[in-house]
Amino acid sequence: MVLPLGDEDRASLNRTALDAPTTPLQIRPLEPAEWPAVWALLEPVFRAGETFPHDPAITEAEAQVAWVEQSQAVMVAVDATGTLVGTYYIRPNSLALGAHVANAGYVVAEYCRRQGIGSRLCQHSLQAARRLGFRLMQFNLVVSTNTAGIRCWQRNGFQVVGTLPGAFRHRRLGYVNALVMVQALVEGP
Amino acid sequence: MVLPLGDEDRASLNRTALDAPTTPLQIRPLEPAEWPAVWALLEPVFRAGETFPHDPAITEAEAQVAWVEQSQAVMVAVDATGTLVGTYYIRPNSLALGAHVANAGYVVAEYCRRQGIGSRLCQHSLQAARRLGFRLMQFNLVVSTNTAGIRCWQRNGFQVVGTLPGAFRHRRLGYVNALVMVQALVEGP
Repeated sequence: MVLPLGDEDRASLNRTALDAPTTPLQIRPLEPAEWPAVWALLEPVFRAGETFPHDPAITEAEAQVAWVEQSQAVMVAVDATGTLVGTYYIRPNSLALGAHVANAGYVVAEYCRRQGIGSRLCQHSLQAARRLGFRLMQFNLVVSTNTAGIRCWQRNGFQVVGTLPGAFRHRRLGYVNALVMVQALVEGP
Repeated sequence: MVLPLGDEDRASLNRTALDAPTTPLQIRPLEPAEWPAVWALLEPVFRAGETFPHDPAITEAEAQVAWVEQSQAVMVAVDATGTLVGTYYIRPNSLALGAHVANAGYVVAEYCRRQGIGSRLCQHSLQAARRLGFRLMQFNLVVSTNTAGIRCWQRNGFQVVGTLPGAFRHRRLGYVNALVMVQALVEGP
């Protein structure tokens, strides 16, 4: 008897393939000329208003400030054909005495979801955060309905610190809970 | 047998006195000319680096941006002699789809601590947040060693959502835990 593959299994298999050293996915710093391609990834995600708190009516210029100019590093994932299929930013999550805590945000092209690219970006961002000297990575507002994202981050070592009741105004669903998630990047407190 | 008053009892008695309708403490919006008096309250707190994440070497101008210009409202507590003894700010804690969550910060003059002024400011800020239409109040980085603050906020209805390990670099103690605390301002999620 052959059981049909669930989404989880499919994602896992795809992830395994992409995680292999032979994967054609390249993750590297954003080059300024690539912004239009990054915006093409971000725009539908921001417009949807389901995962990021930005105004769904955000302009391209505002998005560039939010994603690029306010970040310490912005990376892109490029597939074997040279197509930009994902991006993440990394930045300090707070001011000086909280600046050893990193924050990151990830977007993967809609047609490339469930292939493990989010996991790859997440793992890459954790390495980058360690290299930049951060001691903790924190997500402040993980929308509780974003189950694929939550599973991805949990698989990659993040833990739920707690739940913020009704803290996210989901564009379709209204007020939904949000999670705070963290992962230590160093040993000890 | 008369038991000696503990700090908690003393604070409670003082708080009761100050909470009475006859209390001379007035809480009202900051007037621009009062900034120097607010800075006199903030400066030792920021310099200490024990409760707020701001750079302990923050300049007065940077502090004015951080406390006043980036806030939706700034209030001051003035005692019967007209002396400014406390201040708080209130602002959205996040971008558009998280802008219904309020954030606030409080500072009480060092010589006026343990008199319930922090509680008065906290209660006032909760009323102000409701009036401004916020649905939740959230503190993002409550330093775990700030036990007086934590007790004050818990007494005033805040709950600990979770603990961020080592998320605050305390100027004397090094990396210490920080708490996320919230209080709902409306019924339901």
